[in-house]
Amino acid sequence: MLTPEQFLHQWQGHRGLTRRVIEAFPDDKLFNYSIGGMRPFSTLAMEFLGMAVPTLHGVITGEWKSFATPEVNTKADILRLWDEATTQINAMWPTIPPGRFQEVDTAFGQWKMTIYALLLYVVDNEIHHRGQGYVYLRSLGIEPPPFYDRP
Amino acid sequence: MLTPEQFLHQWQGHRGLTRRVIEAFPDDKLFNYSIGGMRPFSTLAMEFLGMAVPTLHGVITGEWKSFATPEVNTKADILRLWDEATTQINAMWPTIPPGRFQEVDTAFGQWKMTIYALLLYVVDNEIHHRGQGYVYLRSLGIEPPPFYDRP
Repeated sequence: MLTPEQFLHQWQGHRGLTRRVIEAFPDDKLFNYSIGGMRPFSTLAMEFLGMAVPTLHGVITGEWKSFATPEVNTKADILRLWDEATTQINAMWPTIPPGRFQEVDTAFGQWKMTIYALLLYVVDNEIHHRGQGYVYLRSLGIEPPPFYDRP
Repeated sequence: MLTPEQFLHQWQGHRGLTRRVIEAFPDDKLFNYSIGGMRPFSTLAMEFLGMAVPTLHGVITGEWKSFATPEVNTKADILRLWDEATTQINAMWPTIPPGRFQEVDTAFGQWKMTIYALLLYVVDNEIHHRGQGYVYLRSLGIEPPPFYDRP
């Protein structure tokens, strides 16, 4: 269906779009704006960061360690962590053992899944909550970056 | 990374969740509720239907015909079309020619993409806009179905 390299390209394309959504928020709205009692976009962005590299670490090593969530107070803090994760993901991805995608593991001691499905979950969760961020932005009168633009 | 059968299972899992999101809307809100000038969820659901089977038809035959969007006036109309598409997708999927996923084609005369990326786009677009539907539901005080529940 697709190669691991093609999956990585898709994933980083989505992460690039999410980065532009983070950037589109005014700094205060990123941390305090929400609709319907949902979480502000800064919290969602930190969730994405908490899933990406720790999941990849578990995929590669079989060791599931949760993310020591750093304190963030500004948009610049989040964007810096985002860019660090981008570099780490690119470095880690080629070290996934061949055949690993079809193995079943219990991620973080909780979610028993085939590895390809776990990695899709990480991406799908980001798309899902980023869609939520689009509504936040539109309701603030801010045009979000185009969804299809993921070079 | 994953087999075509595994991709179909993921896709139909997402489509099942989207069906539950459609069901969760009160009939009138499905057609007339939105936030920030965005489209109501009925229009988004029709967009998903307009992409799914027509894209798969193009993937299989190389012939790109747009969907003759039927008029829908009730939630039941949309759910009926949804279930018809579910059956069609399952029947069509196994007829995708081997090797087709890595071919490049110009979908609907407009989007030049590798076929696997086109199919991912169809799923990702549904996840993205369904996330928008979650905000609509929450802002109406309605609990959406859990995102991770896609058997």
